[in-house]
Amino acid sequence: MCADRRNRITPTPISGFPEWTPAERMVEQQMIDQIRAAFERFGFSPIETPAVERNTVLTAKGGEETERQIYSLTGLHPQSGGDARDYSLHFDLTVPLARYVAQHNNDLVFPFRRYQIQKVWRGERPQHGRFREFTQCDIDIVGDGKLSLMADAEIPAVISAVFSSLNIGDFTIRISNRKILTGYLAHLGFDEDAASSILREADKIDRQGTRPLLQRLDSLSASAAADDILALVQMQGSSAEILNNLAAMSDSGERFEQGVHELRTVFEHAAAFGIPDENIAVDLGIVRGLDYYTGTIYETRLDDHPQLGSICSGGRYDDLASYFIRRTLPGVGISIGLTRLFSQLLQAGIVKPGSASTAQVLVTTPDESLMSSAIEIASALRAAQVNTEIFFEGARLGRQLRYASRKGFRFAVIPLPEDMESARVKFRDMDAGEEYTVPAAELPQQIARRLG
Amino acid sequence: MCADRRNRITPTPISGFPEWTPAERMVEQQMIDQIRAAFERFGFSPIETPAVERNTVLTAKGGEETERQIYSLTGLHPQSGGDARDYSLHFDLTVPLARYVAQHNNDLVFPFRRYQIQKVWRGERPQHGRFREFTQCDIDIVGDGKLSLMADAEIPAVISAVFSSLNIGDFTIRISNRKILTGYLAHLGFDEDAASSILREADKIDRQGTRPLLQRLDSLSASAAADDILALVQMQGSSAEILNNLAAMSDSGERFEQGVHELRTVFEHAAAFGIPDENIAVDLGIVRGLDYYTGTIYETRLDDHPQLGSICSGGRYDDLASYFIRRTLPGVGISIGLTRLFSQLLQAGIVKPGSASTAQVLVTTPDESLMSSAIEIASALRAAQVNTEIFFEGARLGRQLRYASRKGFRFAVIPLPEDMESARVKFRDMDAGEEYTVPAAELPQQIARRLG
Repeated sequence: MCADRRNRITPTPISGFPEWTPAERMVEQQMIDQIRAAFERFGFSPIETPAVERNTVLTAKGGEETERQIYSLTGLHPQSGGDARDYSLHFDLTVPLARYVAQHNNDLVFPFRRYQIQKVWRGERPQHGRFREFTQCDIDIVGDGKLSLMADAEIPAVISAVFSSLNIGDFTIRISNRKILTGYLAHLGFDEDAASSILREADKIDRQGTRPLLQRLDSLSASAAADDILALVQMQGSSAEILNNLAAMSDSGERFEQGVHELRTVFEHAAAFGIPDENIAVDLGIVRGLDYYTGTIYETRLDDHPQLGSICSGGRYDDLASYFIRRTLPGVGISIGLTRLFSQLLQAGIVKPGSASTAQVLVTTPDESLMSSAIEIASALRAAQVNTEIFFEGARLGRQLRYASRKGFRFAVIPLPEDMESARVKFRDMDAGEEYTVPAAELPQQIARRLG
Repeated sequence: MCADRRNRITPTPISGFPEWTPAERMVEQQMIDQIRAAFERFGFSPIETPAVERNTVLTAKGGEETERQIYSLTGLHPQSGGDARDYSLHFDLTVPLARYVAQHNNDLVFPFRRYQIQKVWRGERPQHGRFREFTQCDIDIVGDGKLSLMADAEIPAVISAVFSSLNIGDFTIRISNRKILTGYLAHLGFDEDAASSILREADKIDRQGTRPLLQRLDSLSASAAADDILALVQMQGSSAEILNNLAAMSDSGERFEQGVHELRTVFEHAAAFGIPDENIAVDLGIVRGLDYYTGTIYETRLDDHPQLGSICSGGRYDDLASYFIRRTLPGVGISIGLTRLFSQLLQAGIVKPGSASTAQVLVTTPDESLMSSAIEIASALRAAQVNTEIFFEGARLGRQLRYASRKGFRFAVIPLPEDMESARVKFRDMDAGEEYTVPAAELPQQIARRLG
């Protein structure tokens, strides 16, 4: 039948839509489990929103560049699909959160702490490292009318918990406060547009140096301010030193001072939150979403892999959902671009795929007349919480053990007639290559203990 | 700012795209966790495929009705979207599995045991209880060239493990074998088309009685066979009795006998797999996908809620991926339509949303001067694996406790100056309404112990 098939289609990958082997997926899934556990440790609750939103919702904020990346639905057949064209795949988890909070606001208790781990889609031009489908892991704390600055102080503790548990190397959470730079620029006499254009160039210093910023100041006939601005965004020193320097700049306007106060408060509570000193640093050079964040802003980098850029970013915003509800909902949140992070960690060899099976034990069946015993052994192991596969296919023991080693099982159980007669059973430690024969009744505990 | 916004969009639900409250989502997520744990207990490994497949892949098998349900992608803006129209959202997890196995077959070890828990999309006409987006939980065991019948025997053990752990009431796994009915009908002289049309009517007996089947036989001028066919598909008795009756029908052709042998083998091993007798039954009346399954078939029903229909179904097939690869890949698998199941369980009150928070403990801050102490208490609880939220918003204790009770925390910690001075701290059991004051250093273990 198979050989007769005409028009067979040879499947090929779709660029930008990543897909992993089972061994890789197990690592990614473990990362998601750890991120979720850290989020829950801080009392964030899960929501899941549909993959699609109404077009009117997704485009409420506007932004030509974003809209060009949106995938709408349509029927595969022209005469089907119904109202599909009214809906599009979400391109982030922030718009869905805003819509969710607005729609369900009467059923939610504020401050609303939610996490959301979902796929998002963006119609990027296919190119290396650009994903069109990827998983984001977001948390937000959304207040009703107001939200304590302590929420800003808690976010780095969540980031720290996440990346400590992921165990992918030393990391630094860089923190700034949007009000410091915008307040300073306002104090220097720049209007909002000019300030934004300056910040956009300041954001490029990491990759392109200071030239774009200096050119911008030149075009604004403000070259005289260059030294002061650069001194601020490139301020070096420990967090305590930078906070002291900022405190000394007491004549830089009210907004600047508010920003310094907020930044200091976030740092003052870091110790109580258990954040190690070396994981947190003031960095006035970080900028982030200019049209969105209004206070504290966060970036996170792996100390040994700066080329990965920020692996977890976010900040404080004044108003989550003003497009959807007549109620001011300030919030603070962060987002981890998991797919990009995972694929980079994989590529850099920082995480490594291990076993291709969720089971630690393979029960072999070298003697098919012992099939029922093999099944009973597996059932006893499973009852003892040990993930177990049985080899059913009828093959010599050597082939079964090769299968065990290809799939990466820790142990192979080998039921043999001579052992079973005396109610004993042999098992093999696949890594150590050693074999043990134990009373059959003790096997589950023996293996559970060795698996720790 | 908020009040000035023009053109505010009031968000409304999208029919067929379900969305849950956080408390409901926590229940759904717990169900997914339990299903996943049961799948992993049997050594199934996770894969995840993109939300989209190439149209050529999704339509390889044909089927007008299926194709009319497919949502394609397109750019929201006519001039954007690129190649989006070549891709569509998958409508099940079977076609993606077939494509995945064909594409990665050189990297997989067979038998390939995979689970996949993902959203799928179908352009159903919006109507009550019909979902256009829903989560499926699938497992399959796919062999290369051959697959032991023992794989068929293991599947009910997985189903049993899943529904035991979900704890949603007594259930029965109904099992048949496609070869019994098709073999019997062939033996009676019906050709394949006639047999299929008879089976399609037999499938309706549950809902419409025997009339459609009798009419069909009449139209085939085969009314004389009606009694024999009805005796078979409606055969009553214990599984052992039915298997004995079938064994006695030894003159019903080779395919029939093969089916009886396979069905008996599946039942013979049920005890070794630890499947309780009351959870498994022969039911020759179940039919399932006629153009797909070729041997063992499964349905699962909740004994007390037959109106839910089958909540977990599947079977054995001869060839998974012949549209994509010149290699015969027989398999056996099942699928749980989680969204439908969860929404029905919710509606029937069989599962109930509980707490709206993942945290069990709220650390209150009735005295804001003790903020650092409150944070330290929360950090110690979190370090002891207790999910903990801190109330930051500055409110009287009464309001904070109301917040704790609305969100469903088990405990509220109440740091007060007079207690803190003697290194003690008070906590309240929110359900019992009782309060305890303990040494602050002992709080984490005290609460962890009470949470079990």
